Amino acid sequence: MRNLLFTIAYDGTAYHGWQVQANGVSVQQTIQDALEKVIGTRENIIGCSRTDAGVHANMYCFNMRTATTLACGRLTGALNAHLPFDISVLSCHEVSYEFHARYHCVSKEYIYKVWNSPQRNPFQSGYSLHYKYPLDEKAIEHEAESFLGSHDFASFCSAHSKIRSTVRNVNAFKVNRHADELLFCVEADGFLYNMVRIMVGTLLRIEQGKIERGSIPAILAAGDRSRAGITAPAHGLYLNKVNYPSGTIV
Amino acid sequence: MRNLLFTIAYDGTAYHGWQVQANGVSVQQTIQDALEKVIGTRENIIGCSRTDAGVHANMYCFNMRTATTLACGRLTGALNAHLPFDISVLSCHEVSYEFHARYHCVSKEYIYKVWNSPQRNPFQSGYSLHYKYPLDEKAIEHEAESFLGSHDFASFCSAHSKIRSTVRNVNAFKVNRHADELLFCVEADGFLYNMVRIMVGTLLRIEQGKIERGSIPAILAAGDRSRAGITAPAHGLYLNKVNYPSGTIV
Repeated sequence: MRNLLFTIAYDGTAYHGWQVQANGVSVQQTIQDALEKVIGTRENIIGCSRTDAGVHANMYCFNMRTATTLACGRLTGALNAHLPFDISVLSCHEVSYEFHARYHCVSKEYIYKVWNSPQRNPFQSGYSLHYKYPLDEKAIEHEAESFLGSHDFASFCSAHSKIRSTVRNVNAFKVNRHADELLFCVEADGFLYNMVRIMVGTLLRIEQGKIERGSIPAILAAGDRSRAGITAPAHGLYLNKVNYPSGTIV
Repeated sequence: MRNLLFTIAYDGTAYHGWQVQANGVSVQQTIQDALEKVIGTRENIIGCSRTDAGVHANMYCFNMRTATTLACGRLTGALNAHLPFDISVLSCHEVSYEFHARYHCVSKEYIYKVWNSPQRNPFQSGYSLHYKYPLDEKAIEHEAESFLGSHDFASFCSAHSKIRSTVRNVNAFKVNRHADELLFCVEADGFLYNMVRIMVGTLLRIEQGKIERGSIPAILAAGDRSRAGITAPAHGLYLNKVNYPSGTIV
């Protein structure tokens, strides 16, 4: 048995998120269907994260323990031939048998895209949040500094069961502008359910003057979802990078 | 009566080109429908170019002679509210009554996008040509230099009636790379039917070694469509800039 680590990218528009579910097509199911055609057996694949419906991925990782002897390069090509155009396999590498795409992930980076212009961009519909009024990326980044470090992010988590701890460590939070495109880039050791989308929604509410500047520390301390801003829509969110310990690829 | 110049952008994926036609929805028709809802009358709008089915526009211009007294800013907002997400009105300006979006255009720039990577990009499906093998942008640009200046482009024109002259002047032809994205940027005083797509198809055929290097002058001189390469697919093509004489906007 081998354990293979796949890196993929996908446009999440057409999918009900990563995880297999009863009502709707998931990315995981679509890949398992394609894998079954390529290797002839139904394999369970282990994703690095449960992305929501409509969320995109520039980089997403999953692993698969499998008896197939097909070379990694052949698997990549054959899978791409069987996958729809909105999912692309970027690479495949052999890893140790114990490797687990979710448990062994040391950090992830998400990007939230905002199209910041009075006029919408026809190519960004479904790929960024359209925000018509001027946004000051330096002011937003300054507010976001309060997220840096280790905090209880319970105020930035949608209702969700089975969470043991709501403490996470945010390593970086940058807000970069490229002309009319604003990119919120957040790296953390882990993310709670909807955490990035609520952080972005809260920062936008602060820019609108509906939440006071400087109040993120108090919102964090409250541990109360109702104190934070709205959950920004899924279609602006991209899983951008998944980090594993060096030496993961054997 | 006023004459208004509109600048728009559109994702051409869902449209059968600019021009109103019997079999399929066009951009022109979609805009005329939206205009009718906004100003209450059916107006004929004059486009700067007849883009093909599937071709996109980062910038496209049309003019409209109209009795409406609505301010330009109001028209822009109201039109965007009535248009689908794949068409965006960027601006509206009053111009002289004689102005004609096609006849008064002095030059246009098209961009052809190639996604040049062994793996496809799920976000580029429908928005660039996927080309798997390495391309040398400097070598392509060097070949493309033969297009510069005034030439008879009959070899780079699909069968089309009513063309008086097939001589055009190409002002610039640049091939720029941004990581895996290759942009072919062509500016000319005018373009024949499928001209950019045949120029790009020919350059790719040269890179593949299927047409000899240095043979573009001979292909131009032949005046024979069969000597040039294939017509590259529509979905990689963007009308990028439309130029009018300075002082056009009154």
